[in-house]
Amino acid sequence: MTDDSILNGINAPSDLKKLSVEELYQLSEEIRVRIIQTVSENGGHLASNLGVVELTIALHSVFNAPKDKIVWDVGHQSYAHKILTGRKDNIGTIRRENGLAGFPKRNESEYDSFDTGHSSTSVSAAYGIACAGSINSEKYYTVAVIGDGALSGGLALEGLNNAGRSKENLIVILNDNKMSISKNVGSMAKYLTKIRIKPSYLDTKSRVHRKLDRLTLLGKPLSRMFSGMKRWIRDNFFGHQPTMFEQFGFNYYGPLDGHDIEQLCTAMKAAKRSRGPVLLHVCTTKGKGYEYAEKDPKIFHGISAFDIETGEPKSSSKGYSDIFGEFMCSAAKSDKHICAITAAMAMGTGLSGFAKKYKSRFYDVGIAEEHAVTFASGLAAGNVIPVFAVYSTFLQRSYDQILHDAALQKLHIVLAIDRAGIVGEDGETHQGIFDAAFLNTIPNVTVFAPASFEELKDMLYTAVYNTPDVAAVRYPRGGELYLPDNYEYHQEDHIFYGSKACDNLIVTYGRMFSYACLAVERLREKGIEVCILKLNRIKPVSVNAVRSSLGFKNCYFFEEGIRYGGVGESFGLMLYQNGYSGKFSLTAIENYVHQAKVESALHHLMLDADGIEQKILKDNGNGNTGQE
Amino acid sequence: MTDDSILNGINAPSDLKKLSVEELYQLSEEIRVRIIQTVSENGGHLASNLGVVELTIALHSVFNAPKDKIVWDVGHQSYAHKILTGRKDNIGTIRRENGLAGFPKRNESEYDSFDTGHSSTSVSAAYGIACAGSINSEKYYTVAVIGDGALSGGLALEGLNNAGRSKENLIVILNDNKMSISKNVGSMAKYLTKIRIKPSYLDTKSRVHRKLDRLTLLGKPLSRMFSGMKRWIRDNFFGHQPTMFEQFGFNYYGPLDGHDIEQLCTAMKAAKRSRGPVLLHVCTTKGKGYEYAEKDPKIFHGISAFDIETGEPKSSSKGYSDIFGEFMCSAAKSDKHICAITAAMAMGTGLSGFAKKYKSRFYDVGIAEEHAVTFASGLAAGNVIPVFAVYSTFLQRSYDQILHDAALQKLHIVLAIDRAGIVGEDGETHQGIFDAAFLNTIPNVTVFAPASFEELKDMLYTAVYNTPDVAAVRYPRGGELYLPDNYEYHQEDHIFYGSKACDNLIVTYGRMFSYACLAVERLREKGIEVCILKLNRIKPVSVNAVRSSLGFKNCYFFEEGIRYGGVGESFGLMLYQNGYSGKFSLTAIENYVHQAKVESALHHLMLDADGIEQKILKDNGNGNTGQE
Repeated sequence: MTDDSILNGINAPSDLKKLSVEELYQLSEEIRVRIIQTVSENGGHLASNLGVVELTIALHSVFNAPKDKIVWDVGHQSYAHKILTGRKDNIGTIRRENGLAGFPKRNESEYDSFDTGHSSTSVSAAYGIACAGSINSEKYYTVAVIGDGALSGGLALEGLNNAGRSKENLIVILNDNKMSISKNVGSMAKYLTKIRIKPSYLDTKSRVHRKLDRLTLLGKPLSRMFSGMKRWIRDNFFGHQPTMFEQFGFNYYGPLDGHDIEQLCTAMKAAKRSRGPVLLHVCTTKGKGYEYAEKDPKIFHGISAFDIETGEPKSSSKGYSDIFGEFMCSAAKSDKHICAITAAMAMGTGLSGFAKKYKSRFYDVGIAEEHAVTFASGLAAGNVIPVFAVYSTFLQRSYDQILHDAALQKLHIVLAIDRAGIVGEDGETHQGIFDAAFLNTIPNVTVFAPASFEELKDMLYTAVYNTPDVAAVRYPRGGELYLPDNYEYHQEDHIFYGSKACDNLIVTYGRMFSYACLAVERLREKGIEVCILKLNRIKPVSVNAVRSSLGFKNCYFFEEGIRYGGVGESFGLMLYQNGYSGKFSLTAIENYVHQAKVESALHHLMLDADGIEQKILKDNGNGNTGQE
Repeated sequence: MTDDSILNGINAPSDLKKLSVEELYQLSEEIRVRIIQTVSENGGHLASNLGVVELTIALHSVFNAPKDKIVWDVGHQSYAHKILTGRKDNIGTIRRENGLAGFPKRNESEYDSFDTGHSSTSVSAAYGIACAGSINSEKYYTVAVIGDGALSGGLALEGLNNAGRSKENLIVILNDNKMSISKNVGSMAKYLTKIRIKPSYLDTKSRVHRKLDRLTLLGKPLSRMFSGMKRWIRDNFFGHQPTMFEQFGFNYYGPLDGHDIEQLCTAMKAAKRSRGPVLLHVCTTKGKGYEYAEKDPKIFHGISAFDIETGEPKSSSKGYSDIFGEFMCSAAKSDKHICAITAAMAMGTGLSGFAKKYKSRFYDVGIAEEHAVTFASGLAAGNVIPVFAVYSTFLQRSYDQILHDAALQKLHIVLAIDRAGIVGEDGETHQGIFDAAFLNTIPNVTVFAPASFEELKDMLYTAVYNTPDVAAVRYPRGGELYLPDNYEYHQEDHIFYGSKACDNLIVTYGRMFSYACLAVERLREKGIEVCILKLNRIKPVSVNAVRSSLGFKNCYFFEEGIRYGGVGESFGLMLYQNGYSGKFSLTAIENYVHQAKVESALHHLMLDADGIEQKILKDNGNGNTGQE
């Protein structure tokens, strides 16, 4: 960055307030370059961040953070915000181990007023922060920035419904980029298109508002009176049809050009002067300023490292999601009862092909995981076979729906749980470490965990055709790991790998089986024999598997999931209750897991080959070293 | 019932189709009498059922169930439906053990097309059933009946958003009784009031529709063309402002008089002829036809047995909810940072007093448990202390919000979990048996379980002031049970009651402690000494409590909650891992629990004094009988 860089001089939002409009635009270009560089190296969310550069600059020009509170919905669009709030020199560490988070974090900066990661939380959270200000008699503005995609989430609608009737001066900025993660769906999207295409409306409306706003200078009581009058004038003289947001109780301004800093600042200042909740409808272009991202924002939503010149990813290989997608297409071909559901994740879950080929049996319900499961239950009640493909972390949203709408009625729905286990750089909010435990608590649920593509296909088949009630298959992000040549998968609820004639047993499931195999090979070289019990079905835990484990002196359970309420606890207790007298040791995850590459995170958790090896070595002395 | 009763002749909905309008009205009166009689004896949902009698008659006159599918949201308004669909002679068994359920159940009748119990599921489920019909090329109509209160639930809004854009002929009947369980809140409620108060609009509109509907007789292709034209004519000649539901993509008819059977039938027939999703806005009076219930529908929403003449409940005594309410008022008095949240359950959770006294710190967010927790997290981020009072079963909705918005950020929110454990006659969908297990899976959560009013107050205080992050207190429906005179509560995470100098230890928590005390007294008479370990804090489980239990030969854990992932499993495994060599036995709940009185349900589960006594007797021979 050269010396005439404006960004160099920005160490806090207050520095923005000295800049001219031209300088703000120059700054926005510098920020864009910084973001593209960073994401091309670290991976991350590109398109969404490029879309909100001007919006972020306007926000920090008009509001006074950290006194004023800004809540970023999902938070993957907060890179410009981080750059402008004292973190520009560290932005290169984003999403790296010990680096800046890819999402807002309260413990990273006082400018991050609420941690986000899952969609549709911002209105509720910001409304809470606004109410707290009133209770504490502290004066500050609270702003929620929410994308149009996140509006399909029930939580956001609950928030709008609740906040809309309040008197708090909550400001919601609808960042309308016509997308959620992939193409937006549902009525809300259609509706936004309808109000978006009336640019003339904006002009008339701004003129009216400019004139009318002067009236509010007359003091509080008069202003309140005029507020109603303004609406009356507007509705009656300018033929205004109330938007959905106004029906929710919000004052509505828009649509605004999200790349016009002056227009944005004017609207934000008007919002500050308003009484009660306000919604600014801002239209932005996802991927703005980077040709490849503008053209294909779906691809550039959340990506791995890529080549800036060509826009091509630096690496790519077949993953579990692809195998799932292939299975679904082949199943749908032979069975007209198969249908697929996604919550705005068609591409991520591998369903793009299915979506094209079997359009009439493909349902993208938008970011709405609760609805997805109840909808699936309805489909099942209607005698078809719904497969809901969903990331583990987002399935947390559906706990009650799985429990109450599917499992209680013994309806046969299939959950294809992608990104199960550690996911890496997206960090705490995206790890798939709770599904095994929370599904464990629900009756009438069966859960399978494959360790290879072949197993995934087989288990999906079993889930779809040979499992009653709720059937789930959970598989990790990415591709296959190491499997020994002499390992053979067979369709049992568990598999013993290696000779049982030894003292040590590893029990595990999913991709941890690969690490266990590697550890066992290393331990063998050290003279320590270890057998592996691989659980193909993790719920219900096989009683036979437990009984067959009673003879081992040491039993080591490794679980890439939360410890409390997890499979390991259930297995361990069953073992003892069946008369086990050896030592049972459980290595599992005990807390939220910070961002880091998957391998590194697993290493820290002692959940890789090294960790397994060390754990067993510790109990077995140094193995054969004594004999040397 | 006399011989000229019309109801006597109704054995299936088809019998309705032979009746005149006058007879249908007479039938509605007979059904009302039957419902009032039944609820006065069995308890149940009165006001909501009285409100939909005519609506139900109209539904079964116009549609052909079970071929056509009717999904009742929440389902507590399905009594008339049950009476009309072959279950009138058993209606007296409703909510009783082995009797009819108080909610629709697929395994009870082919007329019940989807099980409900929790709010806001019907649109999603019905949309699923409608889509399944298309996939299977089966022709039927699908109707969701949803109350205005349930519309504040995000799941319902997700469903409307998703279904509104589809081409399925889904019919949603909005049963607008201006209430959810208590007074409705939020923008949706305000908005409905606005469109409800234009009765003239209905007249104009019906005239237009009557004329326009004839156009649809012209065949499918023309009808599609005319559908747009109809909207255009209506909007341009009749000054129609689109309702929120139309903005969601639904054809909207209403508001209709929900007690005018002819009007309802006409509108339903029009809905059947429509293409695409339709919403009928029906206004009903909750409690219609029973003076006391009309006057105070809040009281008569869900009630215990009562006296028909006076409307007075047959029994009433102080319960845990009342103590919670008193605590909150007293805490709010001394601490301006305390605030209370309810999801449409102010009365049920004991917050009515707080709501009146501390209006500015009381938030009824509507039926929106997800929002409630994220909103609470926002309040906590703003440095106040939010207490969310919620029934255990409904907290299932907030799993992700507790995990992702509160606990991950270590925000201090307090969950007051009412109706924890078996709740009785409302059955499977309302038992509070999962909270201990699902909270067990979440880091940074502390859970307390009182066994008396005194303990509740103390634990609430500890939760509010001396517990970090997410603090929960779970307590049962109803009041205190037996406690021995020599039992003294003290503020530790666990209490040993009785002498440790014996072989047998009972471990338990919450109200099970009372049953344990009774069992211990009976066992003592039989010469068997038993000590009790009462867990005051059930998460995290106290390591000291575990270590202090190692000396007992037999350890019996009794848990009024789901076994898998529950406290008992965690405790048992910890016990063994700390070197326990005795026998650990866990008695907990292994499946959904059917309706029955609380005492009876606990008895079947072996979770009362009898069950505890028997369990221990079995292992200890017949006690002192050998010595006699």
